[in-house]
Amino acid sequence: MISLEALAGGVQAGTLYGIGVGPGDVRYLTLRATVLLRSVDVVAFFAKRGQQGNARRIVAPLMKDDRDERRFEYPVTDELPAEHPDYQDQIGHFYRETAASLASLLREGKSVGLLSEGDPFFYGSFMHMWRRLSADFPVEVVPGVTGMSGCWTRANVPITWGNDTLSVLPGTLEEEQLVDRLRRTDAAVIMKVGKNLGKVRRAVDAAGLLSRAIYVERGTMQEERILPLAECGEPQGAYFAMVLIPGEGRRL
Amino acid sequence: MISLEALAGGVQAGTLYGIGVGPGDVRYLTLRATVLLRSVDVVAFFAKRGQQGNARRIVAPLMKDDRDERRFEYPVTDELPAEHPDYQDQIGHFYRETAASLASLLREGKSVGLLSEGDPFFYGSFMHMWRRLSADFPVEVVPGVTGMSGCWTRANVPITWGNDTLSVLPGTLEEEQLVDRLRRTDAAVIMKVGKNLGKVRRAVDAAGLLSRAIYVERGTMQEERILPLAECGEPQGAYFAMVLIPGEGRRL
Repeated sequence: MISLEALAGGVQAGTLYGIGVGPGDVRYLTLRATVLLRSVDVVAFFAKRGQQGNARRIVAPLMKDDRDERRFEYPVTDELPAEHPDYQDQIGHFYRETAASLASLLREGKSVGLLSEGDPFFYGSFMHMWRRLSADFPVEVVPGVTGMSGCWTRANVPITWGNDTLSVLPGTLEEEQLVDRLRRTDAAVIMKVGKNLGKVRRAVDAAGLLSRAIYVERGTMQEERILPLAECGEPQGAYFAMVLIPGEGRRL
Repeated sequence: MISLEALAGGVQAGTLYGIGVGPGDVRYLTLRATVLLRSVDVVAFFAKRGQQGNARRIVAPLMKDDRDERRFEYPVTDELPAEHPDYQDQIGHFYRETAASLASLLREGKSVGLLSEGDPFFYGSFMHMWRRLSADFPVEVVPGVTGMSGCWTRANVPITWGNDTLSVLPGTLEEEQLVDRLRRTDAAVIMKVGKNLGKVRRAVDAAGLLSRAIYVERGTMQEERILPLAECGEPQGAYFAMVLIPGEGRRL
């Protein structure tokens, strides 16, 4: 049997690894991510205040007690809208400080694996570190299975067929814009549904897509919940909720 | 050390597994995909006429000589446009025959892993088997890292920031439609560039995005090729080529 380590490569001193940990189920980590988790000097991750941190929770079955871990706690997440100046001040400061901490570990020659839910370059918080550190330190990004792939897999719906177009839309868009974008696409994924659930449902309905829309909360995680959007009457969705509108393109 | 097999789960008799094998680099297979590759009774895959088959080639480092493999050769791929009645006839017939072969293996109680490049439910040919077999046999879909994640990772560009919208567009769209869709999105991935490269370049230019556009051929594979779209003067792109237009959303 081939050794996982031989196949999936080594780790370099003083290097920052952006490790995509996938949508939630630990079995969807890549081989490269798994090997890095076991071999980097420091495992770093972001966490919401008072919580374990979702990326860290995903990899828990692979972590041993003796790992050097660094937890970076967001001063604010969804308590304030991202456009609020206080949010931007606090998050900007936090990212600068975190980048400085990581830089100091990298200068010591440590290899650092920064966990990222899903895929690091797809809406990942890792990007804010990459932007600050990639000019000065070697960086390797390990792509991951996205949260949306996890959701459409568990919802058991192919999302795009043939020449379908797919639009990935944040639930934060204005209702009119959402309707307009939904009308001009074959398939859609609406992210960041959470507090925007009511608006998202109205927009999907206005675009004539309510009968096809599926609400997925925490896809591939233990508390996964999947139901037709039409049956989802609550005023707010979960932080990790998405709405999927599968395409209806060419069946052969 | 935790055994990969214990962590990543077992295999059930008479079950069809749609195994996402990721964008090209074998290190980006998931743990679940790796375990299934080693343990299913039959490994099945599609291949273009006269070729090894891209999905099969991706997993080559993990395959042993003693595996029972079934190669299903497409009667036609890009020699005819997908809208051509002959294409539809030939492919329809081929998928029906392939589904019948897989069904007969499943009825014998065999576990069958059907390889799918990228993620099975994202433009995957697996979907055409899923559609025919999932009512009669147990099916498990294993999500994978998409080809587009592999491409933006290797191009070293975060694709979406903050509240960016992302549009995934097939290069087969009419030029005007491409321009229109590109104007209404923050970030874009244009797939199926191949024979459509000239049109895609004109559309990206007309939408004012040429300076941001990156051409990626065979991302994460050995023959990977990445360059600004503006510098890509050839009349046709490779079959696996994509064009990426990274978003410019909120930096914090």
